[in-house]
Amino acid sequence: MADNKAPIQFWFDFLSPFGYLGSLQIEKLAAEHGRTVDWCPTLLGVMVMNVMGLPAVPATPLKGPYSGRERNRLFGYFGVKLDPFGDGGLPPLPAIRTYTWLKMRDPALARHFGQALYRAHWSEATDVTTPEAVARFGSDRFGLDRGEIIAAIDDPAVKDALKASVGRALEIGVFGVPTFVIDGERFWGNERLPMIDRFLATGSLDPD
Amino acid sequence: MADNKAPIQFWFDFLSPFGYLGSLQIEKLAAEHGRTVDWCPTLLGVMVMNVMGLPAVPATPLKGPYSGRERNRLFGYFGVKLDPFGDGGLPPLPAIRTYTWLKMRDPALARHFGQALYRAHWSEATDVTTPEAVARFGSDRFGLDRGEIIAAIDDPAVKDALKASVGRALEIGVFGVPTFVIDGERFWGNERLPMIDRFLATGSLDPD
Repeated sequence: MADNKAPIQFWFDFLSPFGYLGSLQIEKLAAEHGRTVDWCPTLLGVMVMNVMGLPAVPATPLKGPYSGRERNRLFGYFGVKLDPFGDGGLPPLPAIRTYTWLKMRDPALARHFGQALYRAHWSEATDVTTPEAVARFGSDRFGLDRGEIIAAIDDPAVKDALKASVGRALEIGVFGVPTFVIDGERFWGNERLPMIDRFLATGSLDPD
Repeated sequence: MADNKAPIQFWFDFLSPFGYLGSLQIEKLAAEHGRTVDWCPTLLGVMVMNVMGLPAVPATPLKGPYSGRERNRLFGYFGVKLDPFGDGGLPPLPAIRTYTWLKMRDPALARHFGQALYRAHWSEATDVTTPEAVARFGSDRFGLDRGEIIAAIDDPAVKDALKASVGRALEIGVFGVPTFVIDGERFWGNERLPMIDRFLATGSLDPD
């Protein structure tokens, strides 16, 4: 039904709990408006620290503590269970490289994998922090070969594909997670979902 | 009707167009929930650059251009006219010190002055960028004495009151404009208005 409508780009990094919430919300909104979602991997650390020259949010004075509180209540607001693995920290490369590898082979499977991995880390206290843990997760949940996952995480072609994706993010001005790109318009954060809803419905950002 | 409910603290700096939008929205929400709004002055530059050690948003790579676009479409989203004076830049001290001085004398008048000044700068292309311009504005719109305004802007007692207000903002962890503080809970940005609406209605941040 949405043959002539471009997919919504969902720019994400698994380490962001706000990205997880965004993934759930944008899939709902896209379905309501007859759109599909293209999960585009990026690396928050590269964008924020290397390119923008900013400290990570948790290390930013004033904003860091606020962000922690915001995370907790935003899960409550959206009705999503918050039960992260460990202290919530997630070294992103094993998970996001595995996602990138899967996307090169089978984008639909990659999306399901991404959804499940987000949920595993943030709602199910499941370890996906190391190559071995991601390989176990991929095997247990999707029947993937552990050795293939371990190899993919170190595969130069996969690394290059991820770098290229981060490069595309920077080219179009993505700087945070989640960022949604719809028909050339960028929206940063779950905060913009009501505006996105209106934009998808009307094709315009003007008031009613 | 809201005798036993504390006012909503609205932390603002006139230089922020998002603060202007926030002032309009929070007054509506407060009225709907039987609350009043306490307009609390702060200085965005002190919080962001001096305390957090960050560049100003317009000077931040990637985020700067996004923020300009976001400003324009957010005015459209809320149906507020965007017609700033000059290039939109507003050296904050003349306006915010005049507001601070008025609040010491007459908080209700100060709030009306704040509302009118925000609108003048952002929707009516009216000059409030210098002590002389603010004095003219205060005289034309509120019948205030120009000389008194000019004197207030340089009054050490007014400067101290503003510094104390910025200090209170930092103590409670305010770091952006607009920030709304409701019954001890901080909400940063117009993005949190739906969450604030629910919080005011239910007294809880949990899902329905």
